[in-house]
Amino acid sequence: MCLKRIEGALEVISGKADGVLITKRENIYYLTGFMPTVVAFLFLSDEPVLFVNEMDAESAEGCGIHVEVFKRVSDVSDRVELRSIAVEPSMPVGLIERIGLGRDFQVMDPIAELRMVKDREEIRRIDAALKIAEESFKKLEFRGSESEIAARLDYIMRLEGSEGVSFDTIVTSASRSSIPHAVPTSNGLGSPALVDWGAVYGGYHSDTTRTFVESEREHEILEVVIEAKREGLRAAKPGVRACEVDSAVRNVIEEYGYADNFIHSSGHGVGLEVHEKPSLSADDKTVLAKGMVLTIEPGVYLTGEFGVRVEDMLVVGDGVMNRLPDHLR
Amino acid sequence: MCLKRIEGALEVISGKADGVLITKRENIYYLTGFMPTVVAFLFLSDEPVLFVNEMDAESAEGCGIHVEVFKRVSDVSDRVELRSIAVEPSMPVGLIERIGLGRDFQVMDPIAELRMVKDREEIRRIDAALKIAEESFKKLEFRGSESEIAARLDYIMRLEGSEGVSFDTIVTSASRSSIPHAVPTSNGLGSPALVDWGAVYGGYHSDTTRTFVESEREHEILEVVIEAKREGLRAAKPGVRACEVDSAVRNVIEEYGYADNFIHSSGHGVGLEVHEKPSLSADDKTVLAKGMVLTIEPGVYLTGEFGVRVEDMLVVGDGVMNRLPDHLR
Repeated sequence: MCLKRIEGALEVISGKADGVLITKRENIYYLTGFMPTVVAFLFLSDEPVLFVNEMDAESAEGCGIHVEVFKRVSDVSDRVELRSIAVEPSMPVGLIERIGLGRDFQVMDPIAELRMVKDREEIRRIDAALKIAEESFKKLEFRGSESEIAARLDYIMRLEGSEGVSFDTIVTSASRSSIPHAVPTSNGLGSPALVDWGAVYGGYHSDTTRTFVESEREHEILEVVIEAKREGLRAAKPGVRACEVDSAVRNVIEEYGYADNFIHSSGHGVGLEVHEKPSLSADDKTVLAKGMVLTIEPGVYLTGEFGVRVEDMLVVGDGVMNRLPDHLR
Repeated sequence: MCLKRIEGALEVISGKADGVLITKRENIYYLTGFMPTVVAFLFLSDEPVLFVNEMDAESAEGCGIHVEVFKRVSDVSDRVELRSIAVEPSMPVGLIERIGLGRDFQVMDPIAELRMVKDREEIRRIDAALKIAEESFKKLEFRGSESEIAARLDYIMRLEGSEGVSFDTIVTSASRSSIPHAVPTSNGLGSPALVDWGAVYGGYHSDTTRTFVESEREHEILEVVIEAKREGLRAAKPGVRACEVDSAVRNVIEEYGYADNFIHSSGHGVGLEVHEKPSLSADDKTVLAKGMVLTIEPGVYLTGEFGVRVEDMLVVGDGVMNRLPDHLR
């Protein structure tokens, strides 16, 4: 259990709800140190109770919070007073029905706010994940098909100590690189070749992208994207809003005439999830604070031609975390 | 697009709702052949519309349904009549708020019902996934730590043609095997050693478990579990209820005095998701039909000692799919 985090969460909800029903597994882990493998409920109030399925009972032992084991979801509703309880936005509406909350609930996301600023141990784990990811990349042989290369990178990361992959590794090339989330194919590697990958260490993620280019046109686009990324890394300082960092990145792409080809946000928070708050996009007014860990990931996608993306991570107030150069061959 | 499936879905909702907002990615894939990589909305009504994010626009082309590209979730609410619309149980309540449904929605799961019975092509893909999983297992060398063995199995599956892993591969042993969802450790393999793994082919999953035993006591428990599994495979026939198969499996375990040590369901449907309907548990009254693909997975978990689980897949009306023997060494 992390008492300080639980107290922080209670402070956020104070006056707004009697309690919050936490079901997002990463949030339960953040508050208790226990990562559920099936549905679990942390009833967060002055007297927190963690409800775990029988299958998780042994793993949840010793997490420092009062644990109750349930067989059916209805066992939980029998045990907690559901009036004036808030739920998280991630909670599936079917689970809300099964637990018997009806339509009488409010939606709050107190833990997402808390998780934005990382403490020293969290930054250490993210950095360790990133180090694994980058060292593995350096060892990677680029032979075989896109999917073989992706599989090999995943395997190397695991052998280097990653607990899994942050997300399905993207290895894509040639004209399919214009699809931001392209699935690797059985084709050999063309040009440009884009790799977007991440490792996991102590539950924390990394997220990095590099693109190899060949033709002059590809080089030209890569330079635009790198310039935009550097602008984002410079802009992401304490006191600046997330949307302002997005503008800084987007303005560079726009100056070169590719505004319509940059079809996603400029970056996002990284931690226990690979995508977490804040989002570096026009709608997110979050004021950045020291200790937030973000990615900056501009891309230019030319449908029918190719796409280029570059992605680095930074600690706000402490600078870029990546050691890999922007230009690779 | 699969017109027959869309017509089937419309039949299920007919008279209950004007339309259903489909957001579960596997369900969108099932109906359209397009697998979203970020949030997408299939507005299923007499005139279906698929709303995709800009990032998925290129991949969604040619799926046979009218596609509209959105930048913000609010763009979708502007376009569809949200009154008398149902949502799926998997839909996060935060997304329901963002799209502006308020509290005026009903919850329905029409596609889960349709997906239970697999057609010939779906069974072919599941069988191909299982074949990859089993062939990879045969090639696996059991040296190094639990996590190295898990990483190696994942890598072999990918090289054998798997599109990923069905779930985080479980390689666990000795006393930790009493945790059903144990995470592999950096320890070398002890006894018993349990492996629960699956491959993915054409979007479809496999799911199998085997346990290696050494001591007499471990052998004894394994025999109980194998007997229970065989009983389940025999019981799972068209016309029988899911809960009756669960009873058949559970009765064997109970006869030997281990009722309290079998702490999960007896199995589940497998398809585009590794866990789907029906659930072989006391609460599920689903009548089994020819073409359903299920796992049977009894286990006995002796906390502080060890655990044993064995898991096979079957096609209802057509028998067991696994070729791996129950006893391994």
